[in-house]
Amino acid sequence: MPIQLALNNMKQSQLFSKTRRHSPKDETAKNAELLIRAGFIHKEMAGVYSYLPLGLRVLNKIEGIIREEMNALGGQEISMTALQEKEIWEKTNRWDDSLLDNWFKTKLKNQTELGLATTHEEPLTRILLEYVNSYRDLPLYIYQFQTKFRNELRSKSGILRGREFLMKDLYSFSRDEKEHQDFYEKSKKSYFKIFERLGLGEKTFITFSSGGSFSKYSHEFQTLTEAGEDTIYLDEKTGIAINKEVYSDDVIENLKLEKSNLKELKAIEVGNIFSLGTKFSEGLGLNFKNEEGKDVPVIMGSYGIGLGRVMGAVVEVLSDEKGLLWPASIAPFEAHLIIVDSKDGEIRAEADSFYEKLSKKFEVLYDDRDLRAGEKFADAELIGIPYSLIISKKTESEGKIEVKERKSGKSVLVEKNKVLSEGFSKLF
Amino acid sequence: MPIQLALNNMKQSQLFSKTRRHSPKDETAKNAELLIRAGFIHKEMAGVYSYLPLGLRVLNKIEGIIREEMNALGGQEISMTALQEKEIWEKTNRWDDSLLDNWFKTKLKNQTELGLATTHEEPLTRILLEYVNSYRDLPLYIYQFQTKFRNELRSKSGILRGREFLMKDLYSFSRDEKEHQDFYEKSKKSYFKIFERLGLGEKTFITFSSGGSFSKYSHEFQTLTEAGEDTIYLDEKTGIAINKEVYSDDVIENLKLEKSNLKELKAIEVGNIFSLGTKFSEGLGLNFKNEEGKDVPVIMGSYGIGLGRVMGAVVEVLSDEKGLLWPASIAPFEAHLIIVDSKDGEIRAEADSFYEKLSKKFEVLYDDRDLRAGEKFADAELIGIPYSLIISKKTESEGKIEVKERKSGKSVLVEKNKVLSEGFSKLF
Repeated sequence: MPIQLALNNMKQSQLFSKTRRHSPKDETAKNAELLIRAGFIHKEMAGVYSYLPLGLRVLNKIEGIIREEMNALGGQEISMTALQEKEIWEKTNRWDDSLLDNWFKTKLKNQTELGLATTHEEPLTRILLEYVNSYRDLPLYIYQFQTKFRNELRSKSGILRGREFLMKDLYSFSRDEKEHQDFYEKSKKSYFKIFERLGLGEKTFITFSSGGSFSKYSHEFQTLTEAGEDTIYLDEKTGIAINKEVYSDDVIENLKLEKSNLKELKAIEVGNIFSLGTKFSEGLGLNFKNEEGKDVPVIMGSYGIGLGRVMGAVVEVLSDEKGLLWPASIAPFEAHLIIVDSKDGEIRAEADSFYEKLSKKFEVLYDDRDLRAGEKFADAELIGIPYSLIISKKTESEGKIEVKERKSGKSVLVEKNKVLSEGFSKLF
Repeated sequence: MPIQLALNNMKQSQLFSKTRRHSPKDETAKNAELLIRAGFIHKEMAGVYSYLPLGLRVLNKIEGIIREEMNALGGQEISMTALQEKEIWEKTNRWDDSLLDNWFKTKLKNQTELGLATTHEEPLTRILLEYVNSYRDLPLYIYQFQTKFRNELRSKSGILRGREFLMKDLYSFSRDEKEHQDFYEKSKKSYFKIFERLGLGEKTFITFSSGGSFSKYSHEFQTLTEAGEDTIYLDEKTGIAINKEVYSDDVIENLKLEKSNLKELKAIEVGNIFSLGTKFSEGLGLNFKNEEGKDVPVIMGSYGIGLGRVMGAVVEVLSDEKGLLWPASIAPFEAHLIIVDSKDGEIRAEADSFYEKLSKKFEVLYDDRDLRAGEKFADAELIGIPYSLIISKKTESEGKIEVKERKSGKSVLVEKNKVLSEGFSKLF
């Protein structure tokens, strides 16, 4: 039995979150404004957001897509912990706040200092000390979806930069540089596929960035948006970009790009991949016996995607003046069934019965509330489910249902049975 | 599209975790010893465990069962945060360490003190200030699966008492005492169903415990095990128990029990339900206009289940001298396919092909490793998947497959096609 969200449908009259007309006063980021207005998230404090039912559904779908692609890469899923011991981070010189500057630290009752994980290279490397001995135990690709804590000095970009946020992080453990590079290249393809499936494909570009102390470059996946905190220089022809932090004549030449073709743009980093070399395996002693029987350190890489950040980026890039606009792949529901003239008993009975049938094949949010049609349509536009299915006296008199596409605003009248058998996504 | 674990099958040769013969030296709890030996969890520090692939699958299945039952109760799923602001907890007098004694505290860069949530009454009550105004907005049942942090002085019971652990917590918001009590009674039935589905039904008893400052009693669901940290007095005829902390002649009389029928037993609290009255709604100002137009505070309840604790309890109660023994409902895989004589090309081809077919209908762990049969059987017993399916020269010569039940140790030879079409759970 696969594990799944048991709830396939929901009546809006029961949904506890409600839409608001006005933006919250303490938000400047469009993503947070819209998501709060539509009842997807709740702000606990700057950079710390709770996910309400609609928001959690989107987050879960993003997670589902990433999980599929990580499994396709040969990834094995685990779940590590937030609480971290000082010892392992001292071994790699990342415990001191002057070296890793966004720790949240805390203490056990006996005053032992602990940290809240900002990332998980150290603990996973330590776990593998138990399991990796020989070249036969490698390569390994291990990932998790885990809450990260980052003590950001400022946090005013909504869910684009959280102090507490859900992240997918995969770590690769390879036997040699070639095996590492092969996987690193495969991971790029996987990331492009993920951003494509998440609806960010057209706006997302691979970007050369600082490799830190580990390697010449790392690679970021940057999504173009004015809300982005990064500046990149994009060559639109090749689709390759350079992050401002490493932008120089040398780098441009090194990447065989032309300065005159590069366009300065704002973007948000939705993913990144890093070659880590042997920094962590040497720090923590993760060696393996190679085919010659010699002990050598494992070559590592790390591959991150922030789930809230992806969701925020989708809002920044795809929403319009009417509200949110979700790609079908991550919409909280596939269809928004709306009853107009809900006080007419016959219409309501018809809508209730259609809801039952529709729910058997699709994920449906049913706006069964006794409100004015205009209010319901405005709510539907704000919530941003890709298709609204409208039942009213008028549609019933024609024996049909109105299907409206959120993106184009276009609508068509269709036989109800046709919707039940063929769906609605191919009508536009 | 429902969200699911994409991986339905796994080859054991690829699984990075391995079994160990010897128990870890720093564990005294049977649950942690066995789960570590079988490669389900990794100890980060006392009371803090990472979940490896097999362990995470069990945890996910426990989550799936609880989610279904919470949705059946009318619950709406959300996800709140670990980081907590002081202000809201001061309003209910639960910030100070002398009043709530297991906080982990931390700080923002600007020295603002934050806490890591041990529970979530306060933040959820605050969220509902945005959404609850009238009696029409109630009742509400809202739940989450969230990591809790509890700064326990000691932690040596493995995953039975974690400092960081996954919990399901549901909160009810009712208009009056009757509505609250109706739901409270429904929640009891739901909890019994959950523990039944998790394989703990026979050993789990409703137990009267302290209601704290909120009400006369709260109710715990206590699972009998010597590993339990609680002492309860159980009346086996009625199935009702009293926690030692409230055990007295008065309470026995009040519950209409006979002292002579009560048996002192060790048990572990796998769930609890609390009537909270108006403590939190009054503290945070969560009122609603009732039908008479009068502002009154919401009546609340909370309903918890620790997922790691449930998993640990299953291990304590069901495992045997050979290792773990999972109920089918939460086993990491439904079947453990084992190839013996794996170096024989024909046998391997046959097993590989059967694995492909079997995986289309069942979740399968395939022990495809070139190891001695005895070693593979011992591993399978330690890992505890309910059914092993064994392919060897011998079974192939008879054109059948051997199906072995972990619990009874019994095995039968069956036609392969019969297993594919009818499964294996009804063979015993």
